[in-house]
Amino acid sequence: MEIHFLGTSSGVPTRSRNMSATAIRTQGARHWALVDCAEGTQHRILRTRLSPMSLRAIFITHLHGDHCYGLPGLLASAGMLNRTEPMAIVGPAPLRGMIECIMEATQLELPYPIEWVPLERLAQTQVLPDFTVHATALSHRIESYAYSFTEAAVERKLDIGKLRASGLPSGPAWRELQQGRDAVLPDGTVVLAESFLLPPRRARKVVIAGDNDTPELLGAEAATADVLVHEATYTEAILQKVGPGPQHSSAAMVARVAQDAGVPNLVLTHFSPRYLDRGNGLTLDDIAREARGQYEGNLVLARDFDVHQLDREGKLRLIQSRPATIGPWQNDPPSSPAP
Amino acid sequence: MEIHFLGTSSGVPTRSRNMSATAIRTQGARHWALVDCAEGTQHRILRTRLSPMSLRAIFITHLHGDHCYGLPGLLASAGMLNRTEPMAIVGPAPLRGMIECIMEATQLELPYPIEWVPLERLAQTQVLPDFTVHATALSHRIESYAYSFTEAAVERKLDIGKLRASGLPSGPAWRELQQGRDAVLPDGTVVLAESFLLPPRRARKVVIAGDNDTPELLGAEAATADVLVHEATYTEAILQKVGPGPQHSSAAMVARVAQDAGVPNLVLTHFSPRYLDRGNGLTLDDIAREARGQYEGNLVLARDFDVHQLDREGKLRLIQSRPATIGPWQNDPPSSPAP
Repeated sequence: MEIHFLGTSSGVPTRSRNMSATAIRTQGARHWALVDCAEGTQHRILRTRLSPMSLRAIFITHLHGDHCYGLPGLLASAGMLNRTEPMAIVGPAPLRGMIECIMEATQLELPYPIEWVPLERLAQTQVLPDFTVHATALSHRIESYAYSFTEAAVERKLDIGKLRASGLPSGPAWRELQQGRDAVLPDGTVVLAESFLLPPRRARKVVIAGDNDTPELLGAEAATADVLVHEATYTEAILQKVGPGPQHSSAAMVARVAQDAGVPNLVLTHFSPRYLDRGNGLTLDDIAREARGQYEGNLVLARDFDVHQLDREGKLRLIQSRPATIGPWQNDPPSSPAP
Repeated sequence: MEIHFLGTSSGVPTRSRNMSATAIRTQGARHWALVDCAEGTQHRILRTRLSPMSLRAIFITHLHGDHCYGLPGLLASAGMLNRTEPMAIVGPAPLRGMIECIMEATQLELPYPIEWVPLERLAQTQVLPDFTVHATALSHRIESYAYSFTEAAVERKLDIGKLRASGLPSGPAWRELQQGRDAVLPDGTVVLAESFLLPPRRARKVVIAGDNDTPELLGAEAATADVLVHEATYTEAILQKVGPGPQHSSAAMVARVAQDAGVPNLVLTHFSPRYLDRGNGLTLDDIAREARGQYEGNLVLARDFDVHQLDREGKLRLIQSRPATIGPWQNDPPSSPAP
């Protein structure tokens, strides 16, 4: 599984970070899913190998602008690429009315259907072929959710020792069993796949949360997850200064819950732009230090364009970083024509 | 007068060009105005010296997404800066309902008032202190307008020769007259300003047009303008291939009208991304060559981040280019903390 961070700032963009958007996909798969879609997400996608053509579903955690204002533009651009495959959209109920209002006012006609999946029907709907997706309600100024992505199918290995001991010769029968299908031998004997398959490994699970001031609400989800992606808008000190009004989490709050749940990988994101300013003395090291004081697992601070891979053993590692060689001007056409 | 190009691509962003947004301001003024506001306009503004705090008014030419999807995000970000000054918004009627629908769904509350100016009231409303603004209806798939910005006040010079000849000594009286006020001499004599002021120079006028397939509609406006900024989405050859459906102008169509109107400066923009791709053999030189075949004035092809200054003599020149030294990553915080 891969997690692509496309925006890691909260509220407003900075020069190096856009607002929330996170892509998730099965490694090597063509199709992918997006969690949140801030303004400028399509501009970020332009600088990755992801394509709006193969985007299968969009999950919106909550309707604050810094998590959804990029949705109309992304839908429009996918339309201009002549996409025809349906796009699933999952999110709080008022999202559909808003998008339809925008589409009407701007006469946006899409060459592909949108499949609106109401949150209350998410559990019964197979939105993605490779993940089951589950929503957990959070606590914020506006209705907000976390989405848990769990592998839908986990490959199983043959118990080679047991097969050898059984005397069944390797060949077509083994291959059938490996696919999970019972094998019928030339003499008509049926060999049950279940008897020769090792127990499946645990399905990997990634939780990507929206804005939330009560990370404890994700305790149970995190306890069975490999990765928790959660906002840590600021440190405790800044949270105390700002007050509880904005309903965000501090790094310490999230880290404590992650530690208690025993989730092995914690990715913090959605950082206040105050950490990215120069000269105010605050840096993301403050966030990291505070989280590390509470959490002993693998801690990651998300950055735009970073791609993390969760391998089958549950280890999360950075496999790709921001394309430092790709400046914003590389495709610049020639300057205005000389007179 | 300054014209800042913040987006010069049509339909979709490219790596070097965003979709439509153009800033206009009086040279040296703090406040400024914006014509169109595509998704990502606030990201462009971040890389200029313009601030959402001093943006006085936004004019939307038409409601296609590539001209207005950045408006909610820009309004929200100005709010997060704690702006309190009113923001005027001018545009086709359905714009207000759409923005109000988005604000309601996303619970966006702004700390400053929006002053909606219906197009039919624009002529009677002083939206900007330094320009009178006039709208001209265009022809496109959706209601579309050009906005003409004309200097509201033109400074006048004293007729020094006539003053000297009159025997009026230089000093406070001259200064009064220069301000356009009648001067009262110590002996009670009133000297009329009008008698000693040279005729004012012509007020400068810049026309910034929305999407339009009939540039002739701007013939009269262009005839009294110093600058016409108009889309030239493609060349004649591509227009023939695409067909008239999208209702855009070719470079030749616009250039002919500009030539006939005698407008001294023509700025083309809103280029199809096909000219910015590599490897398809098309370049913006095709657009320039075609326009030059019809137009003998000063031709400019707009580029993102270019700032053009129109001086008092009506000469338009490039005074600032894209900030080549500002890469997208310059403010990057330290990478994820080492374990």
